[in-house]
Amino acid sequence: MHFRIRAATKEDCKDISRMIMELAVYEKMPDQVKISHEELERDGFSQNPFFECLVAEVPEEHKSEGGFTVVGYALYFYTYSTWKGPSVYLEDLYVMPEYRGNGIGKGLLCKVAEVGKKKQCVRLQLSVLNWNTPSRDFYAAKGAQDLTVSEGWHFIRFEGQSLDDLANEAPKD
Amino acid sequence: MHFRIRAATKEDCKDISRMIMELAVYEKMPDQVKISHEELERDGFSQNPFFECLVAEVPEEHKSEGGFTVVGYALYFYTYSTWKGPSVYLEDLYVMPEYRGNGIGKGLLCKVAEVGKKKQCVRLQLSVLNWNTPSRDFYAAKGAQDLTVSEGWHFIRFEGQSLDDLANEAPKD
Repeated sequence: MHFRIRAATKEDCKDISRMIMELAVYEKMPDQVKISHEELERDGFSQNPFFECLVAEVPEEHKSEGGFTVVGYALYFYTYSTWKGPSVYLEDLYVMPEYRGNGIGKGLLCKVAEVGKKKQCVRLQLSVLNWNTPSRDFYAAKGAQDLTVSEGWHFIRFEGQSLDDLANEAPKD
Repeated sequence: MHFRIRAATKEDCKDISRMIMELAVYEKMPDQVKISHEELERDGFSQNPFFECLVAEVPEEHKSEGGFTVVGYALYFYTYSTWKGPSVYLEDLYVMPEYRGNGIGKGLLCKVAEVGKKKQCVRLQLSVLNWNTPSRDFYAAKGAQDLTVSEGWHFIRFEGQSLDDLANEAPKD
């Protein structure tokens, strides 16, 4: 199937927002999504955006059952390793189920790698859930390392009250 | 002991670079550090910096055995959750061994939380090695969640040849 990958624009935020929810349903955490398409527009498409995004688009004649032509997205941002330098972090990679098996996911992943290399990034990183073996196998087959397995890295998060408590205890200038 | 936490400047990069190496030695991977202080200056202190950094400074009369007054640092950048919005990621938090136990590490952590909250961040995230129980306990005591344990998130990384391979397979525009 023919598809095109291009940089997302503000006008894509409704489609991206719809697919963020579809991905959260797949990840079994749909009630966690608090971000609206208006917030995506503000956070990704104003000055000093927090993220960049690519979308995959199919021609009108291949539109989805629901009538959509934007059928996948990859949302990423730049991070930094104090050992190796600039890196790109792939926060979300998603292709609608009826479009899988056409190389769209691989196309999005490779395009993010290409964008990252152009920005001098030396790494492309992402996170995946333990039980999500299709994704873990997909990345492993492409040469990725699982650092949680090989080096024992754990993810730590402060949010809500614990984050407020930290901020309130910050030393005064 | 009196200490002051302030935003790092370009002139601090030699000190930061020295402490990055000290932290890598503690993490048992000193041969992984490829970033020089010149690269830190370029990546963090030019237009569109990849990171921000705070340093902890002690008065001249408390300088270290090696003669240093910059004795700790916290290096961080902004990330984005498509579920919750802007987040701050603490890449490195380090205090020189002879200055530990004075609240400097906690001060740096809280200051990063405060900076993040000012930027509307809803999360502060970081990674820690499995065997590093002092750090894991420190974060847990402050209310952090270990997402690798509670939700099963794994870190995945492409670098070197596997990253080049991806980029080379990117679909042409």
